[in-house]
Amino acid sequence: MLKIGVIGYGYWGPNIVRNFHGLTNCKIVAVCDKSPQALKHVLASYAGIEGTRDASDIFTSKDIDAVAVVTPVSTHYDLARKCVENGKHVFVEKPFTATVAQAETLIELADKKKLTLMVDHTFLFTGAVRKMKELIEQKMLGTLHYYDSVRVNLGLFQHDINVIWDLAPHDLSIMDYLIETPPEAVVATGASHFNGLEDVAYITIYFPNNTIAHIHVNWLSPVKVRTTLIGGEHKMVVWNDLEADEKVKVYDKGVSVTNKQGLYDLLVSYRSGDMWAPKVEQTEALKLEAQHFIDCILHNQKPVNDGAAGRRVVQLLEAADRSLKKRGKIVQL
Amino acid sequence: MLKIGVIGYGYWGPNIVRNFHGLTNCKIVAVCDKSPQALKHVLASYAGIEGTRDASDIFTSKDIDAVAVVTPVSTHYDLARKCVENGKHVFVEKPFTATVAQAETLIELADKKKLTLMVDHTFLFTGAVRKMKELIEQKMLGTLHYYDSVRVNLGLFQHDINVIWDLAPHDLSIMDYLIETPPEAVVATGASHFNGLEDVAYITIYFPNNTIAHIHVNWLSPVKVRTTLIGGEHKMVVWNDLEADEKVKVYDKGVSVTNKQGLYDLLVSYRSGDMWAPKVEQTEALKLEAQHFIDCILHNQKPVNDGAAGRRVVQLLEAADRSLKKRGKIVQL
Amino acid sequence: MLKIGVIGYGYWGPNIVRNFHGLTNCKIVAVCDKSPQALKHVLASYAGIEGTRDASDIFTSKDIDAVAVVTPVSTHYDLARKCVENGKHVFVEKPFTATVAQAETLIELADKKKLTLMVDHTFLFTGAVRKMKELIEQKMLGTLHYYDSVRVNLGLFQHDINVIWDLAPHDLSIMDYLIETPPEAVVATGASHFNGLEDVAYITIYFPNNTIAHIHVNWLSPVKVRTTLIGGEHKMVVWNDLEADEKVKVYDKGVSVTNKQGLYDLLVSYRSGDMWAPKVEQTEALKLEAQHFIDCILHNQKPVNDGAAGRRVVQLLEAADRSLKKRGKIVQL
Amino acid sequence: MLKIGVIGYGYWGPNIVRNFHGLTNCKIVAVCDKSPQALKHVLASYAGIEGTRDASDIFTSKDIDAVAVVTPVSTHYDLARKCVENGKHVFVEKPFTATVAQAETLIELADKKKLTLMVDHTFLFTGAVRKMKELIEQKMLGTLHYYDSVRVNLGLFQHDINVIWDLAPHDLSIMDYLIETPPEAVVATGASHFNGLEDVAYITIYFPNNTIAHIHVNWLSPVKVRTTLIGGEHKMVVWNDLEADEKVKVYDKGVSVTNKQGLYDLLVSYRSGDMWAPKVEQTEALKLEAQHFIDCILHNQKPVNDGAAGRRVVQLLEAADRSLKKRGKIVQL
Repeated sequence: MLKIGVIGYGYWGPNIVRNFHGLTNCKIVAVCDKSPQALKHVLASYAGIEGTRDASDIFTSKDIDAVAVVTPVSTHYDLARKCVENGKHVFVEKPFTATVAQAETLIELADKKKLTLMVDHTFLFTGAVRKMKELIEQKMLGTLHYYDSVRVNLGLFQHDINVIWDLAPHDLSIMDYLIETPPEAVVATGASHFNGLEDVAYITIYFPNNTIAHIHVNWLSPVKVRTTLIGGEHKMVVWNDLEADEKVKVYDKGVSVTNKQGLYDLLVSYRSGDMWAPKVEQTEALKLEAQHFIDCILHNQKPVNDGAAGRRVVQLLEAADRSLKKRGKIVQL
Repeated sequence: MLKIGVIGYGYWGPNIVRNFHGLTNCKIVAVCDKSPQALKHVLASYAGIEGTRDASDIFTSKDIDAVAVVTPVSTHYDLARKCVENGKHVFVEKPFTATVAQAETLIELADKKKLTLMVDHTFLFTGAVRKMKELIEQKMLGTLHYYDSVRVNLGLFQHDINVIWDLAPHDLSIMDYLIETPPEAVVATGASHFNGLEDVAYITIYFPNNTIAHIHVNWLSPVKVRTTLIGGEHKMVVWNDLEADEKVKVYDKGVSVTNKQGLYDLLVSYRSGDMWAPKVEQTEALKLEAQHFIDCILHNQKPVNDGAAGRRVVQLLEAADRSLKKRGKIVQL
Repeated sequence: MLKIGVIGYGYWGPNIVRNFHGLTNCKIVAVCDKSPQALKHVLASYAGIEGTRDASDIFTSKDIDAVAVVTPVSTHYDLARKCVENGKHVFVEKPFTATVAQAETLIELADKKKLTLMVDHTFLFTGAVRKMKELIEQKMLGTLHYYDSVRVNLGLFQHDINVIWDLAPHDLSIMDYLIETPPEAVVATGASHFNGLEDVAYITIYFPNNTIAHIHVNWLSPVKVRTTLIGGEHKMVVWNDLEADEKVKVYDKGVSVTNKQGLYDLLVSYRSGDMWAPKVEQTEALKLEAQHFIDCILHNQKPVNDGAAGRRVVQLLEAADRSLKKRGKIVQL
Repeated sequence: MLKIGVIGYGYWGPNIVRNFHGLTNCKIVAVCDKSPQALKHVLASYAGIEGTRDASDIFTSKDIDAVAVVTPVSTHYDLARKCVENGKHVFVEKPFTATVAQAETLIELADKKKLTLMVDHTFLFTGAVRKMKELIEQKMLGTLHYYDSVRVNLGLFQHDINVIWDLAPHDLSIMDYLIETPPEAVVATGASHFNGLEDVAYITIYFPNNTIAHIHVNWLSPVKVRTTLIGGEHKMVVWNDLEADEKVKVYDKGVSVTNKQGLYDLLVSYRSGDMWAPKVEQTEALKLEAQHFIDCILHNQKPVNDGAAGRRVVQLLEAADRSLKKRGKIVQL
């Protein structure tokens, strides 16, 4: 029975606690939050949990094997480092760290101590993303031409990070999981309208062989959109995360190159066939992810969403942010 | 009764002929196309029209007052110039010309000869765009924060122009009409997968005061999307051109800046109210545009979509293309 | 080369003329309409057609082999009868006739004279309906449990027929084509709010073995809906005729009967799987139907939509109308 | 501080307990369920609640002021009667009772004892229904022409009641609330395919002055639909309960009667204007309803959803069921 401590019980913490609580081979023993009200709430909801306002109670506790760090990104590095230094496995909220340098230090430290480091890239555990991964691995889509994701809504403004650091970690972690090939360069544009932090941003990521990705994140949209298009050589996918059923649609559509060369002839034509919406598993993603964390610790395995995955996402966030500040200046990776 | 000649009876020409034909104060007297089959078709459909395979029959005819040039963009400049030199008013298919230099020569020439020059920016005459123009002019939206347009589908590949020159003239001409302020710079990214011409592209246009525009054009999308979001200070608009009714939705949503400064307080919050879909006029846009051309000639007025509007769109297309070729290098305007 | 005359050039007539005109093995030689304006319009649009305001010019002409009767339903019987009596094959607009008795007389007469009688059930020739027919014939859906169709919009009121006679012929002809089994009884309800003719109506049709059909037709709906649900034992279908693509969706969903018999146990549970949207052919239905008419005449074959199909639809319309007048009193067939 | 007991902790009970628990002027003191597992669950979730498997512990308790009966409909009458006889206010799950006679006995008994009787017509407390009630009360829609509701999905089969008793109470209670005028007659059709209980049903309700209502309930639909159309003289409403925002849309559309009387002229024409989606309050309906129950008890007021409202819905259910069994035979009310 693995014993777990949780640091941070704000917006996302309750979901973390609820899901680890629901597993059979682990047990939440303590939760830390600076807010007495948050602590009161968690203690009322679960029996046998201790509460503290001091994070060091968690990372120095001899009774705790693993810690979930569910705090603002600016605190991730310090907290996670102390956890690792005290011999705890760590589950860190996304984005992993505020800089690539921090990510690399944490990875090295955890490696040295043979501890499990996992970054909360929850979406990788959704039925939709797992289904798309499966389709890509089965070579059903063929070579990927583009990956286009839109994540916009009238969102709560953050006071410390811009829309890229707030929303793009989702898209970047999914893209990283599905495409695998290392990207070459990033170009980002955007604007800020209220508090100096960008609220609208567009990120282009260049991959080898003309694969291109693009992410649109926006806190100022009147409508909520969560749609990803994936253009493959053989098939194309539309993932609409707001659909109750049929989240993933696979189109037997594509382009064929023909040999006609006449002045008004087309060199390229398209074909169109059936559409297919595979059944997508409905299990809560965070539950599967929590289970994966426990399993990796118990069986000493590398998580899919390990520190390296977290570092790759932070690298893209850093690059996008730097490009955005210089109005789209390309950042080579 | 204004007499009109038409050069080009391919994909779009039949719509031009049908709409000018439907007006009462003009008359189509001749149509030119290189294809005998196209000529046969137009002669069978309309009485009293002459057909020719030689464009000079049109632009030198003494019987013709105005010419519609409905040919590929590479031929626009030569044909339009000859029309103007021969004293004809000209209606030119979009995009106006292949270069800004060409556009400027044509504008100057037409000015000198006091001839009307109109570029076929059809969308400006749709009920949806006119309604949005009205809302903006009434200051209903407040300061514009962003303009975001997506125009994607599994499209017919062009053999001579990329997806920017093919699709973006629509978005750029609408944006130019609605925003009015001159843009400052352009950043574009994209990729080509088949015949060397880009089939996916993303264009960011920077305006003064943090207004930002973005256009996504794509020939490789499995689904057709024609959606524009406009984020204003007071209200926000979603224009979905694929909806049969309710194409334009106005959201009483927005963001308010608050004064809280605590560590975990938000500096910005959002508000949400009613949505309103104003009735949008259904008259065919091209009919209104054709009428506008005739009216401008008869009453010696500047068209909304005059040569200068055409030049501004071509300038943005040129800049986007140049930026795209250099992987997003910013092009100042 | 079959020679065709057309009686009626109002709302639907132009589509009939255009489609027969587009075929290679027939030729429209004359069109009749009482309105001089309609005649002027058709003569301007097509070369080599004669116009007349007297229908007898059509049905007595020695130069005509087949006649399309595209007039209000109250005139169908007289006109079609005269055509048949004069040895013409006849294509009659839907609904076939105003009474079952009229339909039977026409069928008998045409049989005696070995003439082809076809009723314009256009929808049977759409890609969507043909695809659903194919799925049913392949036993993919299994036993049909129900057929539910909604055809509502803010419609033009008719001055001579109610919403059942106006809209339900579409649904009844499709239902008749897909279900095949003869129905047992009809129950209809509805109401009239303006000119004494019902503008909202609900029709239930009972078939053997608990198959049930229901049709909702309505001239007073603020939104347009054209959706049919078909519940089968193995699979279920949703046909949304307003979707541009993916009109027909086949759901691998259904109900399984289980053996549990405990007090609070369910006797029946459901299963859910993939969804599949087969590609649906886009050819204009009326073109295929016109071709089918010509082919049946030339090769002396029974049309799918022959007089008997027309009679079955009229029988249901009559029954529904009778039931509606008596507030849902069941009418046995 | 009102003390509340709850009988039944199955599918819906947890929502009842959670919502009463969240109120400040009442307190849940005991919960009864036959299942030890259900009891264990509720005791683990809330502090200070007693559990029992014997309902008489609830309705005879001197410590309890009001009881929520959240059990299958067949038990409502007995349990509610005992509660009232023991001087408890009662909140009864929908449908109120299995027969009108039972409903009338309960109403009489509660009146005599001056106890509050409320039926759980939750939908009356949703933002959408309250907004529609407001629009109707403001005479914005004008005379109501029709009320059309579709409530279908692939649903869990009940073992003791058919689809009418399971789903139609929602629609009937909303209709009763919005239309107010007493209905005149009911016609229902339907079919059963598995366990002898009807799984598809269509109910027509006739009101005076040609107002007509229709409800389609179905456990065998591959897709979930929750849509109500309301056709009024001046405006029309579409309520789509599955939309996240914009649940209620008000269309400035309607029909105008004109005076033209020519043979082919229309007597009635339609007009079309703006659409408006008023902001709809998002507070959980059950919370407001629970509050209303407490308020009515404390201030001795008649609930909106009192026993009489419950009785009216049961009367319609009984009538529909009787009509359905006789294949649509009209049942006068």
